[in-house]
Amino acid sequence: MQLNPATEQFAASLAATLPQAAFREFSARYSEDLRGLFDPDACLVVAPFSTDQVALIVRRCSEARVPIVPFGGGTGLVGGHTPIDIPKPVLVSLENMNEVREVDTTSCTMTVDAGCILEIVHQIAARHGMMFPLSLASKGSCQIGGNLGTNAGGVHVLRYGNMRDLCLGLEVVLPDGNVWNGLSTLRKDNFGLDFRNLLIGSEGTLGIITGASLRLFRRHAHSIAALVAVRSPAQALELLGFLQSRFGSLLSAYELLGRTGFEFLEETGLISSMPFRTMPDWMVLLQAEAESEFGLQEIVSDCLGEASEKFCISDAILAQSGKGIEELWSMREAMPEANRRIGSVSSHDISIPVRSIASFIEQASKRVSECWGLRVNCFGHLGDGNLHFNVFPQKEVPVADVISRRNEIKTAVTELVRELGGSLSAEHGVGRLKAKELESHADPVLLEATRRIKDALDPAGIMNPGAVFRIPGVDC
Amino acid sequence: MQLNPATEQFAASLAATLPQAAFREFSARYSEDLRGLFDPDACLVVAPFSTDQVALIVRRCSEARVPIVPFGGGTGLVGGHTPIDIPKPVLVSLENMNEVREVDTTSCTMTVDAGCILEIVHQIAARHGMMFPLSLASKGSCQIGGNLGTNAGGVHVLRYGNMRDLCLGLEVVLPDGNVWNGLSTLRKDNFGLDFRNLLIGSEGTLGIITGASLRLFRRHAHSIAALVAVRSPAQALELLGFLQSRFGSLLSAYELLGRTGFEFLEETGLISSMPFRTMPDWMVLLQAEAESEFGLQEIVSDCLGEASEKFCISDAILAQSGKGIEELWSMREAMPEANRRIGSVSSHDISIPVRSIASFIEQASKRVSECWGLRVNCFGHLGDGNLHFNVFPQKEVPVADVISRRNEIKTAVTELVRELGGSLSAEHGVGRLKAKELESHADPVLLEATRRIKDALDPAGIMNPGAVFRIPGVDC
Repeated sequence: MQLNPATEQFAASLAATLPQAAFREFSARYSEDLRGLFDPDACLVVAPFSTDQVALIVRRCSEARVPIVPFGGGTGLVGGHTPIDIPKPVLVSLENMNEVREVDTTSCTMTVDAGCILEIVHQIAARHGMMFPLSLASKGSCQIGGNLGTNAGGVHVLRYGNMRDLCLGLEVVLPDGNVWNGLSTLRKDNFGLDFRNLLIGSEGTLGIITGASLRLFRRHAHSIAALVAVRSPAQALELLGFLQSRFGSLLSAYELLGRTGFEFLEETGLISSMPFRTMPDWMVLLQAEAESEFGLQEIVSDCLGEASEKFCISDAILAQSGKGIEELWSMREAMPEANRRIGSVSSHDISIPVRSIASFIEQASKRVSECWGLRVNCFGHLGDGNLHFNVFPQKEVPVADVISRRNEIKTAVTELVRELGGSLSAEHGVGRLKAKELESHADPVLLEATRRIKDALDPAGIMNPGAVFRIPGVDC
Repeated sequence: MQLNPATEQFAASLAATLPQAAFREFSARYSEDLRGLFDPDACLVVAPFSTDQVALIVRRCSEARVPIVPFGGGTGLVGGHTPIDIPKPVLVSLENMNEVREVDTTSCTMTVDAGCILEIVHQIAARHGMMFPLSLASKGSCQIGGNLGTNAGGVHVLRYGNMRDLCLGLEVVLPDGNVWNGLSTLRKDNFGLDFRNLLIGSEGTLGIITGASLRLFRRHAHSIAALVAVRSPAQALELLGFLQSRFGSLLSAYELLGRTGFEFLEETGLISSMPFRTMPDWMVLLQAEAESEFGLQEIVSDCLGEASEKFCISDAILAQSGKGIEELWSMREAMPEANRRIGSVSSHDISIPVRSIASFIEQASKRVSECWGLRVNCFGHLGDGNLHFNVFPQKEVPVADVISRRNEIKTAVTELVRELGGSLSAEHGVGRLKAKELESHADPVLLEATRRIKDALDPAGIMNPGAVFRIPGVDC
């Protein structure tokens, strides 16, 4: 179906009914073009102040068949917010919708505008003695709407689930401009088909999320973290099983980290010294939390002591104070920035059935180093089976010198992930960068069913065209 | 669109390709007609032995436009499995598909046929040192497929969520007879739109679930339960807040029970003596569980001791042994049977934002007793905001004498639930009994969107017609 560009005339018609302040200059902030180009006339940027204004924009676009690209914090990693090869779209930025609408400490819920920044949500929850568990490296700039659109994960999925598990209700402007007010705060609701979970993770292809009711949790007064040296990913998993059998209910994070990651932190100046004198090949960063003391520190340190003997653990750093815990996490959180500074040849956000993870890491790493002589920084959310498997040139070799390997590497990783029954996007989504992969590798029955749903809800195809559902002939 | 009955000729064409053993005599077991009638020729009952056979049946029905009614354990409470006013359908019973396909104690998953009975799943998980948390009164006969089709809840939602939270993957025969093999065991997967959650809770209107991969949890070695007397539902909520602030991570159930419920148990001979010498108006039955000892019993008993003073709690029974815990739960689990024996005038499975629950119970109960002189047994999953609010005649008054009040009561409860922002079906679903209510009370934008999804996936409307989506003119 034919889409039309957001012409000057179209912009003028929008301007007649929206406040002037809603119109923004298009800048690089709104789009790093996926092909590295910047066209100052690529999008009409509108930042509405209310759900009604969003609905008005969508209705106009629907009537005129003008494409829409919803825009949150702009921190997505798969190009879901960066249009390519479509008629000039309206980029709807939620930045002006950033009010917390309600905090209810009895029902343990917070209702917010979609443009609220994640870290602000953390702060407001804390002010009420509560916490919102979603935690990502980009928390200072990502927005709740984007977190929902991509079903964000992060480091606490092990205990609290991903964004889908943390959201009770949505307010959404659908592709025809109608507003679904589904801002429920109910924990249980089986009155009709589930629509919320379909919209979460739909990456702006089925509507624009304008508000959400989130689950809050009572703040944990007692925390303990540990960085533990392990011999291998397989041993990290054995240790996880052991710790889960002792205090699984209290375990809130279990991250695998590799020596290469720490070398990257040092190489890029993000840390000044290594956490261990003799750096092990592999480490896990774990955290346990409880509402009251009840011996949390003894339990964790006793269990780690027992595990040390059982698994011959050579080294561990235990942090019991807020500051110590923060220091351990700051290294983990700096990992994506270190990767960016080094510059990757190829990055993979994958999940693997837990029992096959160790085998994946071994096989994939071997292939990368033996076939191509490249470095791997593999780290991630081991307890969830989610790894970030990123490939880099050797030290002081420019990425450009080895970038020609990218396709080979991608193919090899993809094959291995599929062989082991894994997913090619664990938490980053599909966006535009993985739309072709989705078309090639997803179950055709599933593709056909979700395509039908897309067509039923957005018959003109105006909502974020090219994201998730590939435009034939367009490859990113 | 015109649907056709499953004629003898159609049955013969199915018989040519399915084993004889797959055909069942239609009996009352397969259908208690919603209007109390039994027509021995109402359905063609087929119980296939494999997913391929299910697919074959669905393809044939699709070609011939013959309606299909999926059938699990037959324990649904809203008529989702009992056809009415449609051409003679094929009732597809999953009873012959009851194999456990795989148990993986590393990934903590179990993959099963949809016809597996919930209690069998419990037993097999236990044999592997694991547990599957879904627990319902009908666990001995309900099937996993039905649990998924209705997004079942039960007593452990507080900690483990409902069926949607406990399922990682599905195998589904879609309305065109294609099979979606989505039997993933991944904890995180954002590769494409979410289809799984749409099918869970769709009550057979979008396809037939034939298999599922379920999340298992490590078995808790230490449990403690308590039946605590409270002054009111409001106080029960205050106590919940207090206990959550102390050991919320370990709390796995928090059920509100009323004196009327225990009187019903006594009246129907399901218990021989009351748990307290002086029965309080309200009680909560709570359970806490942990993987290892770490003072669980001290924590819970200390906190309850502290709460006793803080909230002037008059009485509590603590159970620390398996047998003692079972005894407490057996009373809670007998509640639905007691209700059945007494015979309700009107039953309501509702959820309410937690902060408004106490107000709902007070207002609704007052209205029922003052306006109509009837008895209320209100109990349920307080921590989830989910109540079973059931209305009964006075002792020794036959239901028939007061049944004329049913519509008035339903209207009054419905109005109050809506006023407080609640849901008219918390965990039982819509089925046929609430399809008209859904049409009247759900957000029209949501109804329109889900109707479009239904039409896109099942254009001929063969899948469970009349369930969730009302057939115009048909009222149950």
